[in-house]
Amino acid sequence: MGHLHEECGVFGVYSREADDLAMMTYYALYALQHRGQESAGIVVNDDGVFTYAKGEGLVSEVFHPKNLRSLGKGNIAVGHVRYATTGAKLQQNIQPLIVNHHKGRMALCHNGNLSNSYELRTELEENGAIFHTTTDSEVISYIIVRERLKQDSIEKAVSAAMDVIEGAYSLVISSPQKLIAARDPHGFRPLCYGETDDGKIVFASESCALDAVGAKLVRDLLPGEIAVADSSGIRFDTSKCGKKEKRFCVFEYIYFARPDSVIDGASVSRCRRNAGRFLAMQHPVKADIVIGVPDSGLEAAIGYSQESGIPYAIGFTKNKYIARTFISPDMEQRSQGVGIKLNPIRDVIAGKRVVLIDDSIVRGTTCRHIVGLLWQAGAKEIHFRVSAPPFIGPCYYGTDIDNPDVLIANRMSIGEIAREIGVTTLGYLSIENVRLLSGEDTGFCTACFGGGYPTAVPSDTAKNRFETRISEKKQV
Amino acid sequence: MGHLHEECGVFGVYSREADDLAMMTYYALYALQHRGQESAGIVVNDDGVFTYAKGEGLVSEVFHPKNLRSLGKGNIAVGHVRYATTGAKLQQNIQPLIVNHHKGRMALCHNGNLSNSYELRTELEENGAIFHTTTDSEVISYIIVRERLKQDSIEKAVSAAMDVIEGAYSLVISSPQKLIAARDPHGFRPLCYGETDDGKIVFASESCALDAVGAKLVRDLLPGEIAVADSSGIRFDTSKCGKKEKRFCVFEYIYFARPDSVIDGASVSRCRRNAGRFLAMQHPVKADIVIGVPDSGLEAAIGYSQESGIPYAIGFTKNKYIARTFISPDMEQRSQGVGIKLNPIRDVIAGKRVVLIDDSIVRGTTCRHIVGLLWQAGAKEIHFRVSAPPFIGPCYYGTDIDNPDVLIANRMSIGEIAREIGVTTLGYLSIENVRLLSGEDTGFCTACFGGGYPTAVPSDTAKNRFETRISEKKQV
Amino acid sequence: MGHLHEECGVFGVYSREADDLAMMTYYALYALQHRGQESAGIVVNDDGVFTYAKGEGLVSEVFHPKNLRSLGKGNIAVGHVRYATTGAKLQQNIQPLIVNHHKGRMALCHNGNLSNSYELRTELEENGAIFHTTTDSEVISYIIVRERLKQDSIEKAVSAAMDVIEGAYSLVISSPQKLIAARDPHGFRPLCYGETDDGKIVFASESCALDAVGAKLVRDLLPGEIAVADSSGIRFDTSKCGKKEKRFCVFEYIYFARPDSVIDGASVSRCRRNAGRFLAMQHPVKADIVIGVPDSGLEAAIGYSQESGIPYAIGFTKNKYIARTFISPDMEQRSQGVGIKLNPIRDVIAGKRVVLIDDSIVRGTTCRHIVGLLWQAGAKEIHFRVSAPPFIGPCYYGTDIDNPDVLIANRMSIGEIAREIGVTTLGYLSIENVRLLSGEDTGFCTACFGGGYPTAVPSDTAKNRFETRISEKKQV
Amino acid sequence: MGHLHEECGVFGVYSREADDLAMMTYYALYALQHRGQESAGIVVNDDGVFTYAKGEGLVSEVFHPKNLRSLGKGNIAVGHVRYATTGAKLQQNIQPLIVNHHKGRMALCHNGNLSNSYELRTELEENGAIFHTTTDSEVISYIIVRERLKQDSIEKAVSAAMDVIEGAYSLVISSPQKLIAARDPHGFRPLCYGETDDGKIVFASESCALDAVGAKLVRDLLPGEIAVADSSGIRFDTSKCGKKEKRFCVFEYIYFARPDSVIDGASVSRCRRNAGRFLAMQHPVKADIVIGVPDSGLEAAIGYSQESGIPYAIGFTKNKYIARTFISPDMEQRSQGVGIKLNPIRDVIAGKRVVLIDDSIVRGTTCRHIVGLLWQAGAKEIHFRVSAPPFIGPCYYGTDIDNPDVLIANRMSIGEIAREIGVTTLGYLSIENVRLLSGEDTGFCTACFGGGYPTAVPSDTAKNRFETRISEKKQV
Repeated sequence: MGHLHEECGVFGVYSREADDLAMMTYYALYALQHRGQESAGIVVNDDGVFTYAKGEGLVSEVFHPKNLRSLGKGNIAVGHVRYATTGAKLQQNIQPLIVNHHKGRMALCHNGNLSNSYELRTELEENGAIFHTTTDSEVISYIIVRERLKQDSIEKAVSAAMDVIEGAYSLVISSPQKLIAARDPHGFRPLCYGETDDGKIVFASESCALDAVGAKLVRDLLPGEIAVADSSGIRFDTSKCGKKEKRFCVFEYIYFARPDSVIDGASVSRCRRNAGRFLAMQHPVKADIVIGVPDSGLEAAIGYSQESGIPYAIGFTKNKYIARTFISPDMEQRSQGVGIKLNPIRDVIAGKRVVLIDDSIVRGTTCRHIVGLLWQAGAKEIHFRVSAPPFIGPCYYGTDIDNPDVLIANRMSIGEIAREIGVTTLGYLSIENVRLLSGEDTGFCTACFGGGYPTAVPSDTAKNRFETRISEKKQV
Repeated sequence: MGHLHEECGVFGVYSREADDLAMMTYYALYALQHRGQESAGIVVNDDGVFTYAKGEGLVSEVFHPKNLRSLGKGNIAVGHVRYATTGAKLQQNIQPLIVNHHKGRMALCHNGNLSNSYELRTELEENGAIFHTTTDSEVISYIIVRERLKQDSIEKAVSAAMDVIEGAYSLVISSPQKLIAARDPHGFRPLCYGETDDGKIVFASESCALDAVGAKLVRDLLPGEIAVADSSGIRFDTSKCGKKEKRFCVFEYIYFARPDSVIDGASVSRCRRNAGRFLAMQHPVKADIVIGVPDSGLEAAIGYSQESGIPYAIGFTKNKYIARTFISPDMEQRSQGVGIKLNPIRDVIAGKRVVLIDDSIVRGTTCRHIVGLLWQAGAKEIHFRVSAPPFIGPCYYGTDIDNPDVLIANRMSIGEIAREIGVTTLGYLSIENVRLLSGEDTGFCTACFGGGYPTAVPSDTAKNRFETRISEKKQV
Repeated sequence: MGHLHEECGVFGVYSREADDLAMMTYYALYALQHRGQESAGIVVNDDGVFTYAKGEGLVSEVFHPKNLRSLGKGNIAVGHVRYATTGAKLQQNIQPLIVNHHKGRMALCHNGNLSNSYELRTELEENGAIFHTTTDSEVISYIIVRERLKQDSIEKAVSAAMDVIEGAYSLVISSPQKLIAARDPHGFRPLCYGETDDGKIVFASESCALDAVGAKLVRDLLPGEIAVADSSGIRFDTSKCGKKEKRFCVFEYIYFARPDSVIDGASVSRCRRNAGRFLAMQHPVKADIVIGVPDSGLEAAIGYSQESGIPYAIGFTKNKYIARTFISPDMEQRSQGVGIKLNPIRDVIAGKRVVLIDDSIVRGTTCRHIVGLLWQAGAKEIHFRVSAPPFIGPCYYGTDIDNPDVLIANRMSIGEIAREIGVTTLGYLSIENVRLLSGEDTGFCTACFGGGYPTAVPSDTAKNRFETRISEKKQV
Repeated sequence: MGHLHEECGVFGVYSREADDLAMMTYYALYALQHRGQESAGIVVNDDGVFTYAKGEGLVSEVFHPKNLRSLGKGNIAVGHVRYATTGAKLQQNIQPLIVNHHKGRMALCHNGNLSNSYELRTELEENGAIFHTTTDSEVISYIIVRERLKQDSIEKAVSAAMDVIEGAYSLVISSPQKLIAARDPHGFRPLCYGETDDGKIVFASESCALDAVGAKLVRDLLPGEIAVADSSGIRFDTSKCGKKEKRFCVFEYIYFARPDSVIDGASVSRCRRNAGRFLAMQHPVKADIVIGVPDSGLEAAIGYSQESGIPYAIGFTKNKYIARTFISPDMEQRSQGVGIKLNPIRDVIAGKRVVLIDDSIVRGTTCRHIVGLLWQAGAKEIHFRVSAPPFIGPCYYGTDIDNPDVLIANRMSIGEIAREIGVTTLGYLSIENVRLLSGEDTGFCTACFGGGYPTAVPSDTAKNRFETRISEKKQV
């Protein structure tokens, strides 16, 4: 609905002594909730016996004292939060994915999208495989299990699988006795590693989950790195590292990640303030106040204020009682100028020349609505600054961007967009500045800004083949 | 808890025109509810697109107008009710099982237990298979999908699979364009076929489900028979028939099936009355009234009454507001002589010599409780007649009988059992009479009465391997 | 929907020592569930502190271990099950009604309908009273509280209130220190009294609730009697007894009450069998079998069988998985001849001359449906016998009978009804025989059969005044 | 839990034409959600017929499309959100309170606490009144209904009632044909009035609810004013105005109200920034950054920053997925230094001299926890500034302040508090500055800061009399 969606957050913990890892994973997933609100799951592995709780909804809806207690103590736990399209199909796709295979059980958590999953799936099916889900994660599981038959350890199987699967994947996997973490060679998605004072080893999509469980961030996994935690401690396999260019998703810094997270050494909060500073340098303007669209525009607005000297203000009150069950006003009600989730503070806005910072413009609909609220609140001028370059292409690596046909930057020039959303002036962050967001160019993916795809692009045939009617197919 | 459990009921319908098959399946499953109360599922296949609704609980709990409506119209629907052990593992195991494979989708419903599933599963895993569930149904799916790669139709794949799988299975399967039903060569479990006035083809575990959807019973599938319904009508493959001895589960007649069902040509109600007549001939007694334990003992009591001339009476009021959420009284409360679910009618019982008919004695605990209620209600004598022979062995074909160690007939003589449960006299149905329940000996399985197992018996290693701790295993 | 509805079941227990009375009340209400399925409530009084749990739905839905545990221990508990029209208004009306007044708290449970509640309510309102509910029970509470200001005990207040309120009421009331039970002078509704081995005093609508909690039935309260249980034991006030004629609702015996209950000294099971015997004497016929419509027709069918010598049989299988959430087939589906809740057993019916016994004919729709099922199952003749006289008038004392306009007996002669519902012959129980159901004429209300109303009849103005639109009223 | 609680938000709307007022009230209550999260209710009055939906939980939990739709259209709707102690007693107390009385129905919404409710309740009970709830709102309803018997309109009855009730009350009331709003003569709680473009008249606790429904704020009701909306428009009764001193609750500005609301002419956002400015003037300090505790400390921090010139920063990330069902970490988990709901941003804090602004210190526990998080994040100095004076007394007018015994300012000096919570320096807002928060001294209640109570203080006997055991009372 006018915004980008992240697809997942992953977490895993290894403890030498059996402990209440379910509760620990609960707090970690709660900290990662912003990465996926559609479903959540926890698997606790107690000496090879896997117990799980999963469900649709928020962490606070899926888990309750009773099902957390039923998970018992264990040595390993993995957890997952997921954003996904709704509907009946959801249930089977909820992660962690638990599979039984020749060598025992495996629970797998995945963040990212493969770019060759259709080809892999077809090949597996031609060899008799059956699939219960429509997820890439099940393809990855099969490849790992297939390699496991040839390799003498789960970590070697994961390493061998990484030669086969392509695209974005940050994985956390529990085998009966080991906790494995792996990050794809491009490093599209984040994955960090930390430790607690009492020696637990923890992996998570973001460091804010480490803070939530009292673990210290040690470092992020390198692109291509595999980490293995078991009774003999932690060890790393870097044999796949450095073979491909780092292509970290810049939207993790701009929008997805929490500002209190530190990713690949850079503070998300600081990157956002940097974005604001760059915008102030590139697109200066005379104005009375700088305000941000909550929540991801706030830090960029402070950066703009600090660089430009224009005072920062809180321009909106955001209703904090968000809930999946909230009934949104329909179009008719909205056109009455209703500001239900976001209400401008008239005392701050009225009579002012306003610099307004947001993280992106997708279709333009939401922006136009927000801008309209400011004009109604009495703004004299509105200078819109976007802390990212214009979107023009789809993402194949796990970000849910709208159809290219509806992206406003594909249809209009910057001047046209400014008129369309109704602002006085409009400025985007440049791709060059994006590359320097974290201080130096450490390798960002800029595919969605037109910067080129780092992997082969999936064929169209891959989509929705299970949803096609027979009468519309050539053959069955 | 002192009684046998059936494991499943299956249903499938084929309609040339897309129709509201979800609602039809709902009523069929409601009629089959006695075969499984733990979970239920419906899959509607609309021109190759499969939509499903599944959940834990009764049919009336799992389905509601909203999710039934969301299933839409279709040409094929399959449905399943299941009895299973409770707990976290349940969710994945709920049927119909839907799998995606090389040739498309398949939804499978299974009633029965394989006797060689462990061996088959091991072999599949050694070839790279991964399993999401712990059910035999997933093993069957894999075998069918594997055969489908070699055969040019789903029905040939099912036929080929039947050479591989052993044990009890009544299957209803939807492929993208066909509805398939198959019954194992021993015919352990029932599976019948019917038609509606408007030409829909229907398969169900019991004919009462046909009544519920307004279909006419045509006949039961033969042991070993495969039926295929598609746009060209129905056809049958009997190539596997007659190769093995029929071994129908006698407890379908005695306890599981509904009295209004007709199975393999025999009315369940009549078979139960016959059981009562045999008991009256074998174990006559002077008494004032004959009463049955609701619900399955009632028809046998009428049979006993008719044969013996002793008046039939309704001896108990059964609370009809059964619910899974009912809080049963604990032992302490029970010992006060509380009759909450079943209350004797003192006016009927007091001062009488009572013949009491029930369908089985498992551990003896429940019987002793019921007998105690009758003594409290003033019975002068209690002559207990059981409409089945004594249990002595486990069932490997889908009936959940208690551990042999706790079966009272394995621990005590008939005289001892009579004393243990506190009755004046006790008589069981003989195995010879069991064979004649339906009028003539058409082939019953009597394995649980000591009559020999018709297949190889599964090895102990098959059990619970996913629930064993690593530290208790020799190797991983 | 084609049947009568009872409006309530009440229960109360007094224990000298604080005990787990919530659980005890739960079992009692479960046993009284047939008297009301729309809502349930329990109040536990612990030394003057009242705690309650209430809700819409069945006893097994409203109560669960958590809310029962939260009720704690106490000396007094009262409970209620209720049948009521659905909708938003329900919530406030759920009993027990708890009110705070000058002398403390009071929890009141009521079964029956007042005939002068409109007049009393108006008078109270004219004196400043406000009402939260639309129930008679709140009127009764006000009257008792008003009298309590003048009297020096709660029991005297109840006695004084009984001079004011008219109609049907069986009351169970908890004051801070006493448990009171009272039955109206006509004795329209049942109310019995029992004791447990450990000295608890128990009141209930039916003795089956006493059985469920291990209490022994002592006797029913007399019409007009008040019983008071407190720390000095139980005592009775019979000063209102014998001033009015007993007018017990005969439908308690014929339909409402459980067959295992004993009311005013007569076994419900026996009364039903007597009804069958009377029908056999009054309306004999040559036939092959006698069957009853489950559940209330079964005992009458046995009585008919015993008197006539025609064999009794079980003619229908009733689906026992009743649930409030079951989606009933709509008219179109029904017209296909679908028997979902009640399915005839063809093997029993086909080719037979059938005597069919049911407890009443209201509109005739349900009967016609059941009769149609029997014809479809192959019945040769159907002789319908009704174990009550024809309904012709409304009940003002707590039975929910349809609008007189739709009662079939108001519109047709017996011959016409027989044709309308499609039976070979039809016979009703006579009013004279109704009077002798329990063995001797102990005083029944026969108002709904045209036998005259024992109280003034409520005016029409009393109805729905809170639901009338202002624009349709003369003045506000 | 370490914070103040507001007790209610009220809303009402009058529409000449029947309209979908339920949905409008839904959005208004969603905007008022911060004033009460325990329960919510909506009453729609359609031409004198009242329909309602109520329940425990958040607005988004209580209401859903089905129950909102069931409310239908109407001319008047009133709604309420409530903070209350939890437990079984809640259900009856959920507002709006609907009562039936001599002149019809009345639905009442109340924000505030009476100071003479015990006396009034006792007097009413002595005249035969019964109470269903333990709320002041029921007392108010009785008084209005009693006056209504003497007065010829509901508004005159409300006016007469205002001579009797004392304390804090902002009321919104629906009679069959009128919508009434009234604010107590001290004006303790806010209550504003607005209009929509299509002529609907709207009352709400805060103007943010007007924004949410597209209504324009006209003005706040005066202390003591009564407003009446009906088919002839709106009219005001100011006869009770100006007789008592205005005593508006200053915590509405400091903490309770939303920053986008305007109350009695002053912007809440501006008042909070003013508080920060006063703190900077009164308690200056050399520092590197100013941060606020989300959410109510943020505006004050900006004010401090602007006055002092010290840069403002966002110091914490607050987890926005708040939910009533969230399982808070227990003490042991917390002591590990876990920051689950509020996590400091190390990149912002580390090595800095920090000015930290929060709105209050109650027990000190929460503050100490937050301060500890900052030290862990590397703060060099922490200068705590509180945007209110120290609490020392209880509030009798609707704010839930802790027991005076546990208020830290009652036990310690400011220096001791600084040491206790672990900050470098500590400064509170002065009472003098509080008086000037909105720009000029318009009359604030400062009772909880020791400024004296504007009404008689309720006696202790008023509390919990319904929860007292008999054995602990002198007499019953």
